[in-house]
Amino acid sequence: MSELTQMGAAAKAAERLLAVAGTKKKNDALEAIRLALLKNKERILEANAADTDEAEKTGIKKAFLDRLLLTSERIDGIAKGVAELIALPDPIGEVISMSDRPNGLTIGKKRVPLGVIGIIYEARPNVTVDAAALCLKAGNVCILRGGKEAINSNSILVDIMRESLASVGLPEDCICLVRDTSRESAKELMGLREYINVLIPRGGSGLIKSVVENASVPVIETGSGNCHVYVDDEADLEMAAKIVENAKCSRPSVCNAIETLLVHEAVAEQFLPLVAPKLNKYNVELRCDEKSLRILGISAITATESDWETEYDDYILAIKIVSGIDEAMDHIARYSTQHSEAIVTKDYAKSQRFLNEVDAAAVYVNASTRFTDGAEFGLGAEIGISTQKMHARGPMGLREITSTKYIIYGNGQVRW
Amino acid sequence: MSELTQMGAAAKAAERLLAVAGTKKKNDALEAIRLALLKNKERILEANAADTDEAEKTGIKKAFLDRLLLTSERIDGIAKGVAELIALPDPIGEVISMSDRPNGLTIGKKRVPLGVIGIIYEARPNVTVDAAALCLKAGNVCILRGGKEAINSNSILVDIMRESLASVGLPEDCICLVRDTSRESAKELMGLREYINVLIPRGGSGLIKSVVENASVPVIETGSGNCHVYVDDEADLEMAAKIVENAKCSRPSVCNAIETLLVHEAVAEQFLPLVAPKLNKYNVELRCDEKSLRILGISAITATESDWETEYDDYILAIKIVSGIDEAMDHIARYSTQHSEAIVTKDYAKSQRFLNEVDAAAVYVNASTRFTDGAEFGLGAEIGISTQKMHARGPMGLREITSTKYIIYGNGQVRW
Repeated sequence: MSELTQMGAAAKAAERLLAVAGTKKKNDALEAIRLALLKNKERILEANAADTDEAEKTGIKKAFLDRLLLTSERIDGIAKGVAELIALPDPIGEVISMSDRPNGLTIGKKRVPLGVIGIIYEARPNVTVDAAALCLKAGNVCILRGGKEAINSNSILVDIMRESLASVGLPEDCICLVRDTSRESAKELMGLREYINVLIPRGGSGLIKSVVENASVPVIETGSGNCHVYVDDEADLEMAAKIVENAKCSRPSVCNAIETLLVHEAVAEQFLPLVAPKLNKYNVELRCDEKSLRILGISAITATESDWETEYDDYILAIKIVSGIDEAMDHIARYSTQHSEAIVTKDYAKSQRFLNEVDAAAVYVNASTRFTDGAEFGLGAEIGISTQKMHARGPMGLREITSTKYIIYGNGQVRW
Repeated sequence: MSELTQMGAAAKAAERLLAVAGTKKKNDALEAIRLALLKNKERILEANAADTDEAEKTGIKKAFLDRLLLTSERIDGIAKGVAELIALPDPIGEVISMSDRPNGLTIGKKRVPLGVIGIIYEARPNVTVDAAALCLKAGNVCILRGGKEAINSNSILVDIMRESLASVGLPEDCICLVRDTSRESAKELMGLREYINVLIPRGGSGLIKSVVENASVPVIETGSGNCHVYVDDEADLEMAAKIVENAKCSRPSVCNAIETLLVHEAVAEQFLPLVAPKLNKYNVELRCDEKSLRILGISAITATESDWETEYDDYILAIKIVSGIDEAMDHIARYSTQHSEAIVTKDYAKSQRFLNEVDAAAVYVNASTRFTDGAEFGLGAEIGISTQKMHARGPMGLREITSTKYIIYGNGQVRW
């Protein structure tokens, strides 16, 4: 039995106990985790320093280093996230529906945990606690597999959480960490169908693609966002400019930021000079089709086919002029990753068409795509944003990491 | 571009049109299909005769031949199934929730089709129409890939359905058939992530295992059922005997039939002689652990470890005597495929424990496991019974082959 198989078996054994632990015990464990994080701040920062020192030696990018870094304030933030989770209602045990059948059977549908969730992620040690705490609240055991750069941070964080579980009488194996960060361990994890119910990859598109293609365990695909705003000829152009500025510039590295702006040809001459200065404030590089290039002139460069496909995650925006809502929706259908799409228009019929016909996790009228987020949608917490249609779509909160079972009350019914 | 890739692209193109076709048009198509099935009965029976003749030549099993066979009555039955589907409410367009956020955004969650569904199945040509009609009603395009033995039947059925689609102005490609029934085509289908949203295998455990292990398209696992009845020491033994007889003998080949009987040691001496004659009427072979063998004597044979794991789908029943509900639930946790599990007891606390602690799609108190079925659960129609926890669990009706999207109504909101 490999180390990972043993971990899988231990996780499966813990699953049965955690599934029936009840809300109070789960919240007690979360509170123990919260307190232990604060109490062990020094130890955590030391371990994290070992990771960041090592990363600096290898001459890693600054943005990467920032994601890896923990500070006293960041640990406070992680602990606050756990506190917020404690306050959220427990999704487990909710009876979604129950009714009597003509034969006298009473059939109910009850919310239960998914079971064992594998999380494969990169160098952000905050994910270690966020994901584990979310899984725990929803009665799920988690097997965490973070990036090798964060191994010291992740090890101490998981040690602390496992001690906290034990302190309230829950199995330590409710939270497991794969400490072997080789490619082989990731690959083995993706094949552990016997022990893992669902895999959730969190990170860049390379990681997600690799998990989706290689896993035999069911995967919930998250995160990739090639999002658009379409500015209609009947848009409030001032509003449209503010929305485009926000959707591109407020946080370009996240998946709900836009990558391409689509503008109706009838208002392009008027709109592009209105929005360009707003984007210019952030030094946004504009990659334009022929028509928009002619309007914007030397401040822009020519877009190529690959620009329509690219999630820049950066201060870059592709611009295309379209003949109307149909061409806009065709472009979106072709290039969108079905994450978040927006139209700006004052026209009722076009707003309805866009909402009905655009196929994406979140479709907006007259608002920025940046709102696609668990907290903004009122889910309270978020383990990722699903861009697939199976199981869950859009921001995934506690309810989205649960399953259901039918419970049937009989008095001797048989079926011949 | 391979033939299958072309089919995938055509299906994807049809998806956009079908998603917004509306209930009336989808019902019109179903009614056209129903009428065409009845009108073309002779042609269908001829094609089916070609399949059954060919199958008989290869000396195929009688049960297999029966699954392959269409008769005038069976075609009537298939058409009746389509009529029932027309009468069911359309799941698409339902707004599951909608509320205002503090920032003035109105956020709703709306039911939409899954998209393109691939169905891989074996030799039952009725599945061709059942599955296509269910997908159509829920706004999904389907790509069907049936067994090679039924290729003539499937071809004519799909031709008829495609003509019916065209007759009401829907794209023929809403229903596609993979006419190349080689292993290679099945394998290619399982990898068409770009065009297929979900794969649903329907058939024996070999087929399902192969799809689950080889597909990179997300799969909904269906069907395998190693189910148990546990007869508690506080059971009404007459009721228990009737439930065991029904759960084993009413239709042993289906997934909700039981394979193992667990009996509390305190009532085994009394219960086994009560249930044995009922099972004997059907010549059920009993495979017993040591203790139950001692009670049943020469009418039974010794069970081995593999018996606890086997889904017989036949008139065979494994029997094990347990010390109580804990050992029963341990056995179930170890060997169950988490399909349907039942307890027979008069004790309140034990009924609650079993419902809460047993992890299966359907958990019963004092009723036969045979009720796990879309029609019996009131879903109206069924595309399969999911034994996984992701997306859907238990019988899957129309709602279970849908997804959702968030629709967001704003008036200029941005998020900095």
